[in-house]
Amino acid sequence: MDRLDHIRAVALELFAGKGYEATTMADIGDAVGMRAPSLYKHVTSKQDLLAEIMTATMRELLVANRAAVATTTDPVERLRRATEAHVRYHARHRREAFVGNREIRSLVEPHRGRVLDLRAEYETCFRDLVRAGIAAGAFSVTSERLASYAILDLGMGLAAWYRDDGEHSEDAVVWQYSEFALRIVGSGR
Amino acid sequence: MDRLDHIRAVALELFAGKGYEATTMADIGDAVGMRAPSLYKHVTSKQDLLAEIMTATMRELLVANRAAVATTTDPVERLRRATEAHVRYHARHRREAFVGNREIRSLVEPHRGRVLDLRAEYETCFRDLVRAGIAAGAFSVTSERLASYAILDLGMGLAAWYRDDGEHSEDAVVWQYSEFALRIVGSGR
Repeated sequence: MDRLDHIRAVALELFAGKGYEATTMADIGDAVGMRAPSLYKHVTSKQDLLAEIMTATMRELLVANRAAVATTTDPVERLRRATEAHVRYHARHRREAFVGNREIRSLVEPHRGRVLDLRAEYETCFRDLVRAGIAAGAFSVTSERLASYAILDLGMGLAAWYRDDGEHSEDAVVWQYSEFALRIVGSGR
Repeated sequence: MDRLDHIRAVALELFAGKGYEATTMADIGDAVGMRAPSLYKHVTSKQDLLAEIMTATMRELLVANRAAVATTTDPVERLRRATEAHVRYHARHRREAFVGNREIRSLVEPHRGRVLDLRAEYETCFRDLVRAGIAAGAFSVTSERLASYAILDLGMGLAAWYRDDGEHSEDAVVWQYSEFALRIVGSGR
C-alpha cells in the first residue's frame, strides 16, 4: 500500500468510527504518524479525502456491475450476477458503504454533485436490468424504480449487519440475497 | 410539545445533521435557547439524550408491529401488515432511522446493550412471522433469519432515499415494499 492509500485507509477508519465532522486532519496525521506539513504534501484537505473515498466507492461498484453484466446476455442471470456483485461488495466494504451513506451531506460541491451523479448512474444500471427483464417477459414489476431501489437497499442494509464471523458465510448471504432480488422482480423460485 | 420533547427533537436534528460526536450540549442549548444550567435541569447528558432517542425509536417500532399483527390471524396478512408498519415508520421517521443506524457505536453501556436487545426483539418479531408462514405452508424460505433481515433492510434503505415530495407517495411505497416482502418469502403475486 503506498503512502496515499494508507492515508485514505486511515481516514476511512476515522470517518467510520467517529464521523467526518469530528475527525481532524491532526487525527489523521497522528494515526499515520505524519506531521501536518508532510501530510499536506499528499492530500489537500479532509474534504478531498472524503470525496476521493466516496467517488472511489461508486466507481468500484460501477466497474463490478459492468463486469458482472458482461458475463451473460440472459436478463435473469444479468440481474442475479449484478446483485451478487452488489451484495458481495457491501459485505466486503462495510466501512465504505457506511461512510458513503452517512456522510453524503458532509460533501460540498462539486464533490457532492459528482457522487450523486455516480449513484444515479449506478441505480440506472439496475433499473435498466429490471426493464430488460420485463421486456423479455421474465419479470413482473409495477415500478421499475422501486424494484431497483429495493434491490439496492439489500446491499446497504447488509453492510450494517453483516459480520465476517457471523452465522452466515459471505457466499450464503450473496446467494440468498440475489435470490431475494429475483423474487422481488417476480422471477425467483 | 413540552420542553423535554423540544430538546429531544432539536438534539435529533443536530445528531442527524452533523453527527453525535460533533454535537455539543452547548449546540443543543443554543438551538433551544437555553443556557447550560437550565438545560441540565431537563437532561443529564448528551449520551442520555441519544439513548432516549434510540430506545424510543425501537419501542415505537415494537408497538407499531404488535398493533399491526393483532389485526389479523392470517400469516400472509400478518407479514404484510407488519412490513407496512415498518416501512411507513421509516418513511415518516427518517432522522430517527438515520441516527439509529449511524450512532449505535456512539452509545455506551448500559444503553448500547438495551438498544441492541430491543433491535433483536424486533428482528425476532419478523423471524417469527416468517416461521409462522412457513409452518402454514404459505411461505418458502431457505433462511428465516436472512429473509427477516432482508425485509428489515427495506425499511432502513427507504429511510435513506425517501422524500415526501418525491415521485412516489408514501402509500405507493408502503404497498410496493410490502409486496416485495411477500415476494421475498415466496408468497407474492
